[in-house]
Parts: sequence; C-alpha cells; structure tokens
Amino acid sequence: MTSGARVRRPSHGPGSLLEVAVGEFITRGYDATSMEDLSRAAGITKSSFYHHFAGKEALLRAALERALDGLFPILDSDAARTGPPLARLRHIVRGQIAVLVAELPYVTLLLRVRGNTETERWALGRRREFDAHVAALVREAVDAGEIRAGVEPALAARLLSGLVNSVVDWAKPGRGTTTLADDVARAAFEGILPAR
Amino acid sequence: MTSGARVRRPSHGPGSLLEVAVGEFITRGYDATSMEDLSRAAGITKSSFYHHFAGKEALLRAALERALDGLFPILDSDAARTGPPLARLRHIVRGQIAVLVAELPYVTLLLRVRGNTETERWALGRRREFDAHVAALVREAVDAGEIRAGVEPALAARLLSGLVNSVVDWAKPGRGTTTLADDVARAAFEGILPAR
Repeated sequence: MTSGARVRRPSHGPGSLLEVAVGEFITRGYDATSMEDLSRAAGITKSSFYHHFAGKEALLRAALERALDGLFPILDSDAARTGPPLARLRHIVRGQIAVLVAELPYVTLLLRVRGNTETERWALGRRREFDAHVAALVREAVDAGEIRAGVEPALAARLLSGLVNSVVDWAKPGRGTTTLADDVARAAFEGILPAR
Repeated sequence: MTSGARVRRPSHGPGSLLEVAVGEFITRGYDATSMEDLSRAAGITKSSFYHHFAGKEALLRAALERALDGLFPILDSDAARTGPPLARLRHIVRGQIAVLVAELPYVTLLLRVRGNTETERWALGRRREFDAHVAALVREAVDAGEIRAGVEPALAARLLSGLVNSVVDWAKPGRGTTTLADDVARAAFEGILPAR
C-alpha cells in the first residue's frame, strides 16, 4: 500500500515536503500539527521526513524564509528606492501583491505567525522591519506634501499593510496578478469605493 | 496555593471564564488548547470549568456568538437600511470598527476561524452572510452610479472587508473609537493615501 502511494506521489524532495507541511500548518495550525500528521500527509515515514528536515520548526523556518525572500527584494528594487515617495509606495504595494499571489501559502503562513516559538519571533521581527520601511516611506510622502491633509502616517501605514495582506484570505494561487496589483494599488491610493 | 490564587481572581462566573478561554484560544490557537490549559489559565479545576461550559467547543461557540451578536445588529439599524447605498455602507463600516474595538478578542477569534469544527463552520457561514449583505450594498452603490467607474463590486467588497477586519491586528481594547471609525471610513472611501 505504501509503495503504491509513493508511485502516485513521485516527488518527495525537500521542496514538495515543505509544500505539504505548509498546507498542514495552514489547515491545522502550526502548534496543533505533529510530525506524525506531516508524515501521514506526505505519505512517507517519519524518519524519511527527518532525513530532509530536522523537525517541525525547521520546516516552519524554511517556509517563512521563502515568504520573506520574496518580499524583501521588493524594497531593494530601483523603483522602490528612487523617485517621489508616493510612486515608490505604489511600486511596493504592486510588488507585495505579486509575491503574495506567487507564494500564497508561504505568505499566508507568515501572516499567521504569533510569536510562540523562536522562529516565529524571528519572522515577526522581519515582518516589523518590512512594515517599518513602508511606514517611513508613508511619512516621507506626507512630509513631502504628496498626500491630502489629515492623513496620520502611522495609521495609514497600518491600514495599507492590512489592506494588502488581506488579499491572502481570498487570492487564488498562481493566477495572473497584474490586474489585481493595479486594482489593490488603486484602492489604496484612490479609495476602495471612491465617490463619483 | 490554589485558594490564594482564587483570592486574587475573585470572579469565576461564565463571563470571566469565557474571557480567559478566548485569550488562550488566541494565544495558543483553538486546536492546540486543551481543557487542562484552560483550567490552569483560569486557576480553577477542570470539573469547575465543566460546571459552566460543556467543553471547549461550547466555549468557542459562546465566544463567536458574542462577536456575531455585536456585528449583525449593525445591518438592522435604520442608517444601514435606508438612504443612498454609499451612506449606508459608511454607517456599516463605522459600526464594524466600533464593535471590533469593543469586543476585540471575540471578533479576533471570529476572524481566525477556519472551519475545522461544526461550530467554526457555523460561524464561517454567519460571516459569509454578513459579507454577502455588504457585497450586495456595494453592488447597489455601483449600480446607482455613486462610485467612480472601474470599480468591480465583488473585489471592492472583499477589499473593504479586508481593510476593516485588519484593524483587529493592532487595535487596543476598549479605547474611544469615534476617531478611528472616521479614519477607517475615510481610508475606505477616499483612499488610505490619497494624492493631494
């Protein structure tokens, strides 16, 4: 039976095990998922699983790294580093949506992290770094007079992050993202429901 | 020791047990929390806990009911039922923010529900009802020509819900909410970062 199951799932490299693990973490919650659950879901023995990953937390770390390795390069691109702050923010928002859809399960997991383990606290710290970078840019845009009066930078940065990240709750993995990125950016900068 | 702990926590009625349980569910995740964890956190025995609640799922249901009992009346108020659709939406968004802050842990739990138990599926169904009501109003506002061209109603409804619900991630419990409700409504209808 086991070898039959293996024939149906030809690849058991670290990448596909990570994918299976992330799916289980999202469905069951990280804390409630055991290595037994993961082995069962992957259709391999626990010891085969341990051959690729030292344990549950190593899997979590690999998954969170994948999400963060998608997100951070957005901040380093030319379009995010030069030009008027508002245009740079628009570029970052569009980049976030693209990564969020391309790496949907990994970013979903990143956004669910609450700080219960060392790995989770590390990932939370990295998320805060990303958000602080965006918040500083929001403040620059306000200070440069690019934004209408009355916008409080810290609140705007939080709402911007909340709007962008909420897309994980309904996005479909791997779909074309250009239109979605345009639509979310427009919603952020012109209103979700702008009056005529 | 135990009776000393009890002196420090004078109230162990169903309300305060529910509060303790919701705190644990949020910190540990519902699936990873046992009745042992809950009894320990409340400083009472498991059998005292069972005296008030039939079990973990009864606690979850009571918590989710509290959130939903705050949210649904918003849709039934006069200001949400009569007048131009966009003004009704603004009223609903403001009401959601008020309930979200007043019932912060309960709404937080509601928004984390994934459908792993019958109670969670029931709560998800109620959330979808609420969202469908708002989505229908968004469509009405678009059809009535109140919204600028190019806004796709289903997407706008999702982004609106995402923006409003994201406030649970950083809101402080029980604070004055009028300004926050105004700010979130303005962000939704005029843009988080509206260009000057």
